[in-house]
Amino acid sequence: MVKRTSRDIRTANRYEVLRQIIAESPTSRQELAAATGLSLATVATLVGELLDLRMLTEVGFEDSAGGRPRGLVAVNAAGGALIGVDIAETYVRAELFDLGLNVLARAAEHMRPGESRPEQVVGHVTTAVGSVVAQAGIEGARVLGVGVSVPGQVDRVTGVAEYAPNWDWHDVPLLDLLTEHIAYPLHLDNPLRACAVAELWFGAARGHANAVVVNLGTGVGAGLVIGGGVHRGVSNSAGEWGHTTLVLDGRLCHCGNHGCVETYVGAPGIMLNLRELDPGGALLHPEDQTATVDALARGVAAGDPVAVKVVRDTARYLGAGISDLVNLLNPEIVVLSSWVAATLGEPLVAEVREAVARHALKRPLAATEIVLSPIPGDPVCLGAATFALEGALSSVTQRSSAARRGAPVPLKPV
Amino acid sequence: MVKRTSRDIRTANRYEVLRQIIAESPTSRQELAAATGLSLATVATLVGELLDLRMLTEVGFEDSAGGRPRGLVAVNAAGGALIGVDIAETYVRAELFDLGLNVLARAAEHMRPGESRPEQVVGHVTTAVGSVVAQAGIEGARVLGVGVSVPGQVDRVTGVAEYAPNWDWHDVPLLDLLTEHIAYPLHLDNPLRACAVAELWFGAARGHANAVVVNLGTGVGAGLVIGGGVHRGVSNSAGEWGHTTLVLDGRLCHCGNHGCVETYVGAPGIMLNLRELDPGGALLHPEDQTATVDALARGVAAGDPVAVKVVRDTARYLGAGISDLVNLLNPEIVVLSSWVAATLGEPLVAEVREAVARHALKRPLAATEIVLSPIPGDPVCLGAATFALEGALSSVTQRSSAARRGAPVPLKPV
Ligand SMILES: [Zn+2]
Ligand SMILES: [Zn+2]
Repeated sequence: MVKRTSRDIRTANRYEVLRQIIAESPTSRQELAAATGLSLATVATLVGELLDLRMLTEVGFEDSAGGRPRGLVAVNAAGGALIGVDIAETYVRAELFDLGLNVLARAAEHMRPGESRPEQVVGHVTTAVGSVVAQAGIEGARVLGVGVSVPGQVDRVTGVAEYAPNWDWHDVPLLDLLTEHIAYPLHLDNPLRACAVAELWFGAARGHANAVVVNLGTGVGAGLVIGGGVHRGVSNSAGEWGHTTLVLDGRLCHCGNHGCVETYVGAPGIMLNLRELDPGGALLHPEDQTATVDALARGVAAGDPVAVKVVRDTARYLGAGISDLVNLLNPEIVVLSSWVAATLGEPLVAEVREAVARHALKRPLAATEIVLSPIPGDPVCLGAATFALEGALSSVTQRSSAARRGAPVPLKPV
Repeated sequence: MVKRTSRDIRTANRYEVLRQIIAESPTSRQELAAATGLSLATVATLVGELLDLRMLTEVGFEDSAGGRPRGLVAVNAAGGALIGVDIAETYVRAELFDLGLNVLARAAEHMRPGESRPEQVVGHVTTAVGSVVAQAGIEGARVLGVGVSVPGQVDRVTGVAEYAPNWDWHDVPLLDLLTEHIAYPLHLDNPLRACAVAELWFGAARGHANAVVVNLGTGVGAGLVIGGGVHRGVSNSAGEWGHTTLVLDGRLCHCGNHGCVETYVGAPGIMLNLRELDPGGALLHPEDQTATVDALARGVAAGDPVAVKVVRDTARYLGAGISDLVNLLNPEIVVLSSWVAATLGEPLVAEVREAVARHALKRPLAATEIVLSPIPGDPVCLGAATFALEGALSSVTQRSSAARRGAPVPLKPV
């Protein structure tokens, strides 16, 4: 049975209005209606709810030509705090944001190789979250929630990390473990979804109904935006583009399959591309992905032919893999995100665009553009904090609806 | 800007209610509410609209335990006719349906190789449509619409066939050409979408929010059901799974890319798999795809080792390609449709299931099942007729809403 309710629509509209206000504050209900395509009455209701929740404030009036003054609203940045946590293979990062999604505090914990038992990771998360709250000097009661991104496949409802390939985690009850140490509402998901939500709310996917956010890091994957929302699939594991086959019987992947996209364009795959081209070369830092990708970026900038060739080869694999996404999903935009994309930057994107143009079908190719993520800082922390914001918006729906009933939104000066 | 309106929801709910009634007639509003998850008030409104449109009829009452008798409704099969047209590489088929989607008449036109100029194809469509209307002996006024499936990429709004690879069609204004000869409302789309809609309304995808309908014919592709509706992408070209890369630098594809899925599992690809294994063998009918696939099916049934091996090899390619869909989209169900799937049948599906189990990630694998299409006859004609039904339901929304306003739905005997 497929239920779609007017409540889903209301939630989506509430997100859309808040997104627009965060992007441009202060603003009027009339401007919001024009920007979102919603009716003025709907916008007025949603703004009223957000005012009740203290997520917005009234900030005065502007004249409108020939009409009565329009009330202006803005994000109430001090109305609460959101925390985003990025659990990665080698570090845990936490960032604390105000409701305008401005960073107020940051903390990072380094994890040594082998230090990846669930209790160790939970310890680092607890420390990092405690640190950002202390640095920001806010009361715990103002923290609306903590979003946590954990690699691999996560059950959002039970909070179980089903499979984290690089740590060999299977069915770790991460939410339960975190709840023992962290009292704020917790929202778990994975970095693909975090990056997709970050782009959808604050980045290059804003305003697009169909977008793909390609994550290029140690692991790779694709956050899918379909119909204006993140597509999670039936068991929240959609987006595993890194484990689609690019070369049948190709390189062995840790997932057990051969020739997965990730084995050619994830950081270890890029290192292998380099090793195959120039086995003993100076660009390779055998045990250090970050140093190797940094060296490649510097090499390309300096015109080093080996670096240029490795990036071109990688872009060729990427181009074929991204063409698969373009042909299959026909998105408006493909956003390249995460640290490998950020480090290799525009030279990589330019090569990828050429490679996609060679592989993709004309019609979907003409409809799409390929860009670097414009989000400064860690998009995973930002996306994880956005999970907490979405969680806060959903959990208050009922309460707020009841409070608003019969209380008209003031549209004129009082 | 991402607009989602309550009208979209209303249309989706109207589809859902009509789908349920078509599947099980007669039925009561109470049963419909239970089956669809919609409120009784919503169901009553939608049923009222469909009664006004004469798509339903009241057919009496059933006792309810302790309550007043419940009104029963059924599809008004005679309330109109729908025509579905399947334009394929070698034939044009038309089927005329009543509103219960029962076939009342069929016509087929054979197209010789080379007989693929747009005017020739339009001539065949016109003849076939005229034939089914004449056979069914109905007045033209009762035809609510004609859905036309055309291979390749189609602009639904302008009705331009942008690219039909097997005919080398580019930007053919097919809707304009058809409109010169056919007076009924026309709805164009491609076979991927037709098969997906057919499965969603009448087949294995019914009631599933996330499904993939894999089309195995001369060309191959995947109709994507996401969030309970067909995902078309930003320019209606989503689903080109046949042109995703399975073997980088593999077989040359007519799309210009190398190693596309279609070159290994489309009918010509299967013939190549056979030729590579057994160059001069008896199973191969060099110029006849249908005869070759028939021979393979008979060979498998008879235990012929060459046929078994070719189907296994094909299933291995298919398994890798379908695993890509499973890992990327995390669907509840994968439906194998079209004539190659129907001909090779369960032996193929069994091999595909094994191959997918070897390639896919555990979590999405556990959430999905792989089945043959249960739709008898031509799913493309059925899906195309469903486009016409959807079109009829959408175009009357406004009229019907106005008619219903203030007219309560009778829920008790009159
Ligand atoms: Zn893999
Ligand atoms: Zn191709």
